[in-house]
Amino acid sequence: MVRVELGPRSYDIFVGENWWHRMPDFLTSISRKSPAIMITDKNVFSLYGMRFLELIRQAGFQAEPAIIPGGEDCKNLATCTLIYEQMVTDGLDRGSTVFALGGGIVGDVAGFVAATYMRGIPYIQIPTTLLAQVDSSVGGKTGVNLPLGKNLVGAFHQPSLVFVEVDFLDTLPQREYLTGLAEVIKYGIIWDRQFFIYLEENLARIKAQDKDCLQYIISRCCEIKAQVVAQDETEKGVRAMLNLGHTFGHALEALTLYERYTHGEAVAIGTICAARLSQSLGLLSASEVSRIEQLIEAVGLPTRFENLDPQAIIAQMYRDKKQVGGRLQLVLPATVGQCRIVDQVPESQIASLLGQCSENS
Amino acid sequence: MVRVELGPRSYDIFVGENWWHRMPDFLTSISRKSPAIMITDKNVFSLYGMRFLELIRQAGFQAEPAIIPGGEDCKNLATCTLIYEQMVTDGLDRGSTVFALGGGIVGDVAGFVAATYMRGIPYIQIPTTLLAQVDSSVGGKTGVNLPLGKNLVGAFHQPSLVFVEVDFLDTLPQREYLTGLAEVIKYGIIWDRQFFIYLEENLARIKAQDKDCLQYIISRCCEIKAQVVAQDETEKGVRAMLNLGHTFGHALEALTLYERYTHGEAVAIGTICAARLSQSLGLLSASEVSRIEQLIEAVGLPTRFENLDPQAIIAQMYRDKKQVGGRLQLVLPATVGQCRIVDQVPESQIASLLGQCSENS
Repeated sequence: MVRVELGPRSYDIFVGENWWHRMPDFLTSISRKSPAIMITDKNVFSLYGMRFLELIRQAGFQAEPAIIPGGEDCKNLATCTLIYEQMVTDGLDRGSTVFALGGGIVGDVAGFVAATYMRGIPYIQIPTTLLAQVDSSVGGKTGVNLPLGKNLVGAFHQPSLVFVEVDFLDTLPQREYLTGLAEVIKYGIIWDRQFFIYLEENLARIKAQDKDCLQYIISRCCEIKAQVVAQDETEKGVRAMLNLGHTFGHALEALTLYERYTHGEAVAIGTICAARLSQSLGLLSASEVSRIEQLIEAVGLPTRFENLDPQAIIAQMYRDKKQVGGRLQLVLPATVGQCRIVDQVPESQIASLLGQCSENS
Repeated sequence: MVRVELGPRSYDIFVGENWWHRMPDFLTSISRKSPAIMITDKNVFSLYGMRFLELIRQAGFQAEPAIIPGGEDCKNLATCTLIYEQMVTDGLDRGSTVFALGGGIVGDVAGFVAATYMRGIPYIQIPTTLLAQVDSSVGGKTGVNLPLGKNLVGAFHQPSLVFVEVDFLDTLPQREYLTGLAEVIKYGIIWDRQFFIYLEENLARIKAQDKDCLQYIISRCCEIKAQVVAQDETEKGVRAMLNLGHTFGHALEALTLYERYTHGEAVAIGTICAARLSQSLGLLSASEVSRIEQLIEAVGLPTRFENLDPQAIIAQMYRDKKQVGGRLQLVLPATVGQCRIVDQVPESQIASLLGQCSENS
């Protein structure tokens, strides 16, 4: 169990394997007096939906499912509106609970709906992808996209608990598994050198999706995220570290219309961009850069982008919502295990670095 | 100045007369490094829009106006979406500020947009109606309507400051002035007997819209609301007192499709329903009931509803979002100056009370 310490908004993350049937054990403190809703997507519903709906009902909740199509295209206010309407029709009130069963998109949408229905009701995260288990289900960031940009509408709203079943990963496509690993590696670089070394030393088990190894990895990532979030819930400071590789990565995703790279692939390439930029600024040694590159490459993630103009990437980076007052704020590794935030890197230096990180270079 | 004490979310309410030009004096701590937006409605924009836009710009903000049509019909997610899109286009980022210039609808929409744009940015309330000045601009309740019900989507998001110009009331239609008075009287009944007596004793000045009297009244209402909100920001307890007359009132508004009564008119009638119900339960004396009725009638607010079936009102009350787990929770005066929350009133007693409060009775 990992505790996220946030005063009255504290909660626990439970990580286990082949223990989905035990989920109701953790719901004892959740009110059953009002109707509930289980939000999921089509794919997850077909795999696990009825099983969890029955568990939730057996636990005493009067719950109906809300099934969204899934995919980035449905992460918008129109989807939320349909869910809100179902919630009203199903009689959900301020004493109701939202269950989010799915990956990052389900979690973000369900979290935002829970944050805003009747000005906020509790929700429970049951993340089914590695990315959601190690990252998006923890920390309370919720939100949806606008046509003009991703995650531009949202709220900070902490879940009441997070229940992780490692066996969900049995049905996760390989490319989605790798996208989660990009965030796993990120935690090592920003926070925990020992964890990075563990990943290097357990490469074969990671690639074989060894369950014990995964259970340890997920727990450790949740611990790190819990520590970071406890220090800075609404990203005024240290939480920005979690964006390592993301400013570059978001630009790569946007410029390729979210079709070429998964989120984790873009973050992996972005992490290498950040490491190399850090090296060119004299903040990170060449040997640390190669170590980062080697681990990313070894798990099977891309390390270079293709056919993109560095100037276009930089222009897109300025559009990222993390930027304030027109200054690029970048997370750069200072060593494996520690990062710093730098906001005065000359554009020419970023452009030259991006030239090196392209497949064509 | 009235301080709303909410730890890191504390803020000040500034109340004055003929001092609109001094607003920039209170903006010194607000960041100007990113673009801002001034949200208002057509009517308020034509009266005060350019004047305030210029003030805000002179104060160093790069601000553009967003003008919504106004009226309950535009208080929805579609309006929010248009504003979000303008915010992106205007380059608003996490360092930006939203100015809300208008009545309750502008404040609720602008507050919700500020609560959810990039997971929350600061906003400033400049309320232009009595209702907004004494009630909705203070306390951080924001939200929009769904087709199935009012204020069903929203967030708690406190403003960074509230600037009240009493002279805005010069252009307020009489019926809107009265709707604000219903909430003013409410504060006396729930919290402050002396204030209720002040209202009784200053009736002529109130009806003449005497500025000194209004400045005192607005300040006192803000003080009371600040105290209540400081004790219970998210309405888990004492804040529910502010809903005196509102469960009845909301039902009257909904059953007449928001066309027959203003919010304050419905609350006035609802307050009398609550007082009479309290009397019939033996919680409030007959003389206190008449005092409440007399003041409401004397200011020119309605005291009875017409042609509505008590059973239909009760059914509608159960649909109010304040109800949890299917139990009606009612705020009932115990004396002028103090209320209690009661959740076990037999329906038959409510029905019989409603029979007495109808014009036909």
